[in-house]
Amino acid sequence: MGMDYSSMDQWILGEDSFDPTHLGKCEAVMSLGNGYLGLRSATEEKYLGETRDLLINGTFDRFDESEVTELPNAADVTAMELWIDGERFSLDQGSHTGYRRELNLRTGELTRQVEWTSPRGSRVRLRFRRIVSLKRLHDIALEVCVTALDQPVSVKLRSGIDARVTNTGTQHFAEGEKRFYEKKYVQLLETTKESGITFVLNAVHRFARNGAPLELATDVNIDRRVIYADYTVELAPGDTFTAEKYANVYTTRDLDCAGLTVPQLQEKTLDDLKESAALGYAALAEESAAQWREEVWDRAPVEITGGEKSRMDLFSLRFAQYHMRLMLPRHDNRMNIGAKGLSGEGYKGHCFWDTEIFLLPYYMFSDPEAARKLEEYRYLSLPGAHRKAEENGYRGAMFPWESAWLDDGETCPLYMGTDILTGTPIKVWSGIIEQHITADVAFGAWQYITIAGDEDFLEKYGYELIMDTATFWASRLEPGEDGRYHINDVVGPDEYHEHVNDNAFTNYMACWNLNKAIEYYQQLQTENPALLRKLEEKLNLTEAYPRWVDGAEKIYLPQPTAEGILPMDDRFMNGQEIDLSKYKNQEFVAGIMKDYNLDQIQHLQVCKQADCLVLFYLLEDRFPPEVKRASWAYYEARTIHDSSLSLSTHSVQAADMGEMEMAYDLFRRAAAIDLGPYMGTSDAGIHAASFGGVWQCVVYGFGGVRMLNGKLRIEPHLPEGWDSLAFTLMWKGQKLQVRAGRDGSATVENLTGTAPVTVTLNGVEVQR
Amino acid sequence: MGMDYSSMDQWILGEDSFDPTHLGKCEAVMSLGNGYLGLRSATEEKYLGETRDLLINGTFDRFDESEVTELPNAADVTAMELWIDGERFSLDQGSHTGYRRELNLRTGELTRQVEWTSPRGSRVRLRFRRIVSLKRLHDIALEVCVTALDQPVSVKLRSGIDARVTNTGTQHFAEGEKRFYEKKYVQLLETTKESGITFVLNAVHRFARNGAPLELATDVNIDRRVIYADYTVELAPGDTFTAEKYANVYTTRDLDCAGLTVPQLQEKTLDDLKESAALGYAALAEESAAQWREEVWDRAPVEITGGEKSRMDLFSLRFAQYHMRLMLPRHDNRMNIGAKGLSGEGYKGHCFWDTEIFLLPYYMFSDPEAARKLEEYRYLSLPGAHRKAEENGYRGAMFPWESAWLDDGETCPLYMGTDILTGTPIKVWSGIIEQHITADVAFGAWQYITIAGDEDFLEKYGYELIMDTATFWASRLEPGEDGRYHINDVVGPDEYHEHVNDNAFTNYMACWNLNKAIEYYQQLQTENPALLRKLEEKLNLTEAYPRWVDGAEKIYLPQPTAEGILPMDDRFMNGQEIDLSKYKNQEFVAGIMKDYNLDQIQHLQVCKQADCLVLFYLLEDRFPPEVKRASWAYYEARTIHDSSLSLSTHSVQAADMGEMEMAYDLFRRAAAIDLGPYMGTSDAGIHAASFGGVWQCVVYGFGGVRMLNGKLRIEPHLPEGWDSLAFTLMWKGQKLQVRAGRDGSATVENLTGTAPVTVTLNGVEVQR
Repeated sequence: MGMDYSSMDQWILGEDSFDPTHLGKCEAVMSLGNGYLGLRSATEEKYLGETRDLLINGTFDRFDESEVTELPNAADVTAMELWIDGERFSLDQGSHTGYRRELNLRTGELTRQVEWTSPRGSRVRLRFRRIVSLKRLHDIALEVCVTALDQPVSVKLRSGIDARVTNTGTQHFAEGEKRFYEKKYVQLLETTKESGITFVLNAVHRFARNGAPLELATDVNIDRRVIYADYTVELAPGDTFTAEKYANVYTTRDLDCAGLTVPQLQEKTLDDLKESAALGYAALAEESAAQWREEVWDRAPVEITGGEKSRMDLFSLRFAQYHMRLMLPRHDNRMNIGAKGLSGEGYKGHCFWDTEIFLLPYYMFSDPEAARKLEEYRYLSLPGAHRKAEENGYRGAMFPWESAWLDDGETCPLYMGTDILTGTPIKVWSGIIEQHITADVAFGAWQYITIAGDEDFLEKYGYELIMDTATFWASRLEPGEDGRYHINDVVGPDEYHEHVNDNAFTNYMACWNLNKAIEYYQQLQTENPALLRKLEEKLNLTEAYPRWVDGAEKIYLPQPTAEGILPMDDRFMNGQEIDLSKYKNQEFVAGIMKDYNLDQIQHLQVCKQADCLVLFYLLEDRFPPEVKRASWAYYEARTIHDSSLSLSTHSVQAADMGEMEMAYDLFRRAAAIDLGPYMGTSDAGIHAASFGGVWQCVVYGFGGVRMLNGKLRIEPHLPEGWDSLAFTLMWKGQKLQVRAGRDGSATVENLTGTAPVTVTLNGVEVQR
Repeated sequence: MGMDYSSMDQWILGEDSFDPTHLGKCEAVMSLGNGYLGLRSATEEKYLGETRDLLINGTFDRFDESEVTELPNAADVTAMELWIDGERFSLDQGSHTGYRRELNLRTGELTRQVEWTSPRGSRVRLRFRRIVSLKRLHDIALEVCVTALDQPVSVKLRSGIDARVTNTGTQHFAEGEKRFYEKKYVQLLETTKESGITFVLNAVHRFARNGAPLELATDVNIDRRVIYADYTVELAPGDTFTAEKYANVYTTRDLDCAGLTVPQLQEKTLDDLKESAALGYAALAEESAAQWREEVWDRAPVEITGGEKSRMDLFSLRFAQYHMRLMLPRHDNRMNIGAKGLSGEGYKGHCFWDTEIFLLPYYMFSDPEAARKLEEYRYLSLPGAHRKAEENGYRGAMFPWESAWLDDGETCPLYMGTDILTGTPIKVWSGIIEQHITADVAFGAWQYITIAGDEDFLEKYGYELIMDTATFWASRLEPGEDGRYHINDVVGPDEYHEHVNDNAFTNYMACWNLNKAIEYYQQLQTENPALLRKLEEKLNLTEAYPRWVDGAEKIYLPQPTAEGILPMDDRFMNGQEIDLSKYKNQEFVAGIMKDYNLDQIQHLQVCKQADCLVLFYLLEDRFPPEVKRASWAYYEARTIHDSSLSLSTHSVQAADMGEMEMAYDLFRRAAAIDLGPYMGTSDAGIHAASFGGVWQCVVYGFGGVRMLNGKLRIEPHLPEGWDSLAFTLMWKGQKLQVRAGRDGSATVENLTGTAPVTVTLNGVEVQR
């Protein structure tokens, strides 16, 4: 009971029973969206404990100085409360049969049906449908059908726009105008308190009885932060009442409304609403489904054949693709992807290294235009990175660990969770000392440039990004008594170890960043001296370049032990070893924080997530296989995967090592993070990066795809139970069709065919 | 089913069934408090649609410029959520028997009991008790008992402090420190955004099994705006688990914590909590009940004997007394009484003319010390009244229609409700043109001074208040072509008629105010010239006095028609007459606003509430009986009593006219406003003024008590069904015991007896 996968071959994620104590799961994993807006799938009727979120990407606001900016929860347009013969429809009242909720990944439509008997015995059949249009980014459409079963029933519908919702108690909005137009069109304005973004929301209803249009008297209500109307209809047995609700949301931050005054926006949005309502639900749903096909399923098709389990694997991948589209701001380069996408308030809509390290690969290889926008966002947020560097006494661009609006700078909160020993909140050091993000951003930009072959981006933004970040690292290095440069007092990717020195990931990535800047500098000297002169002026390269060279030469890079294990930092391997089996098998993460406080965990040999292992994976050819293997065995045993970023990293590397069973097992676990049956772990939103991880498990791990030193390598090794795997890759503007068989055979076809590409296919360089 | 009055002789208001769709009623009418804090009786377990308010008097805050100040909803300490064998305890789940909730008016304790069978069949008996201490103004204590009925059960309790609550979506607080001390004491701080008041809340639990103290492991959680712990206990059949929760709340605005820094406050409040917890629930409840006896029931005892109905009448009066203590800030003269007391968010905690005209009589005649504080508040808020006068182009003190913190000035919101024709919110004019409040305040002060015989108040504040308000009226008068002064463009007490000229209530009361100032001036000339000189300087009386005289002489006072009807204003009697029976019989108020918009209502002969009739009642000897009678008949027929202030005014005057049946009927209707069975009308809070009205119906109406020209008159006329009525009156420092019989006989005894008083008893002047 709960999640139901029986229709997965029809691309459908189902829920076969309703559990009012675990609302968060389906609200998040069945959420709808289009990259402009994200809508949690809270139901039309309300429940205690629900989280009714409508988040508009990029509309960050800060409640006060004690908080950081976050995506504010916009007024709700989805509630459509029903009373049947005076009793409030609710699935935790009375009784019901035939419950089923379905998310259709292919079309992006959410449906629900149930037969409900009220506590006093009124019986109705209910059907619900809704979409967030992928075609009209501002549009939400819902439909409710109520059928009287045995006896006449009276149906009351209450529906409107509700701005009483908060972000877990924090209210970002000042109330604005609320108004009924023509007793029919509902409009509500609200404005974020600090960032001053005005949201305009509209809604209108269309009614029918047994398919025939119906006019209903409108009982209008405007109250504090809310505007709604009541409608009543009497149904004979067998009658079906249909209520369609069309809603839209715009903000003064929208690029497509730039320059409009608020009154103009009010007028335009109302006109748009009228147009959508005139089209009707079915037409809107159809054009949105067509957009899904064009933008996602035809653009990046994947096929897996094989045994029973492979069906679920393919479904997992499609589920990942579905969510990676919901969270993607294809329409605007001034925003990025939150760690929970737009499916919940977790991490406040902030983006992390998750974008570059976990998500970017999918976008680069399927939708390079969108991938470019994500990297443009980093370029546009350079002012915040400069400010952070300056505030910390460094030079160049020091990217925020958590990034929100372009000029917000660092938005990592200062406290989170509970210290079980002191009874106080735990200080979060990541915003101050989790510094590898700066190299991750540079690495992501380089990956994008190389895979897309985007010279334009490189010239406009890429050189500058990579040089500016290198300048940060050069200023960050600390000379040691050993004559080497060290990076002390940091948090590496493994956040259970704070204030460590010479974190291997950080130092190697910083070194990579410095060397990449040097390489680009030298390249420009010969290939584009004019551009170099411009950059010299802007970035003061005369001073910077020698510092990069000096830094890259003298940076301390931790070396493997005699056993071939790369030390994660200067402390970990001296830590105490404890039995981790309890934590490795927990359904919930962070259970260890209930037994130890963070000061204690620092001194244990326990990892939250992959650390060195991410390094092996990014700088794949920098470490010999025996180091990777020994380190993998050592660290995996000590890793409790308390981060959703951990499993896929391990899976891909297990696949690289030919440990296919282990790779497959880790992939299945990674795929289950949100899609699996656990009911509590997605409450704050889906795990955005893990979807990128699932795609990487399949395409990087089993497909053996990698960009190595600027070259495309394909070396498939399919897991047991798969007969074939097919996917496409965008490579330097050419769309490649890759097909791999169980025996490791592989073919590559250039579908675009406008330019030849070189691929290292199972060790052989081929042209396509 | 619903409200249950069967234990009213034991001072108990009961609820015999739980209706989750009408939570607001008992939350409000069974609310607890002590004038410092008001606690709505939302249940320990949570329900959709609940309003979980903890309001601390005087802690006003303003969310932003688009809103007015209001009492912010403090963090909740009352939730104690239970899971029985993993199922959440909720009365809308599973099944239950033996439900009963009881508010004991005598002790101020709220109890609840029920036997609950969970959806999966676990059976428990639950008992809940709670008090807000009347002795320790900061203290709240709760107790939950869970008894396993047939089988062993596992009980999980989640309890802590929750600062996610809002005022209908508006969040007034910035998050502050949250901390567990000794894994046991929970502390949460929060600070109002604009007014900068820091709230410190503490809580701790004590557990027992079958009466024996129990230590339970604490699973601690700190999250955004919330801090709580989970506790689990296993019960054998017949075992009873008891969880006591002690909580307190303090703010940096508290007089009794003046001068303490926030850290000092944190320490002090934690110490206080420890002390209360050490005393235990029973001892805290007992000392609080003793305080209720001393402060309320022994201070202002009332007895009614007679037939069946008289029992309910007595209970209604005690219910009114109970609530009039909950709302009374006896501890602090910087605050007043909100129109909903502290029992809900309605009217935002603001005080109106309700205080002077409806509530003050009870306090003056029972607790003059408290009454004085209410009038001191008006004196202390003079700066806001001066500002309002200045902003509107007048002089002197123009009191705000809605008053909050001392220097807030006018806090009446600009919009409320929905205009059914335009679809927009309705503009509220009261804050700008409902100006009679200024005379009401002066009138209240004079009443208090006279009844209490408080010369000290008169000298320190009274003269100044009455002169300063007279100066306002003198500046407000508009010369007309008829050589008289008019007051144009106002709203009188009847708010369905805006922008009227020469509202009778306003003009007569302004005239009274001017004359009272003149009278006091002349009195001071002979009796206290020194004080007069001080006041001359402060209030510029040399200029003001001749203006008062001129104003009082020339102000236009509407005169009765040939039929003896006093015209309410210059427009009403020309309005259209419509059939009002529909609105007169509605359970909910303001139904007329669904059929007409306010622009239309202006031109109908329909009154929301008493207007002229209040005037007859305040300036009783100014109008001949035949005018009162003719006007009563005319206006009552046109009044739909859409204000809770209306019925009692009509009742007292019906009693004055000897129309006892009508008077009694109106009294019963007034008493039923909150106490009656209607389930939706108290949602936003109880109707504070109506409680004063109930007391006035009994003591003024049936007891025939009135202060007339500075003299006490008693002239009882009891309604059918009452055999006797006994009550006390504080009169010029002497406590008088009044006993009245069915035959109109009456006795007065001076219980204090330190000075003789004169009473006009049934027309005969007597000394006691």
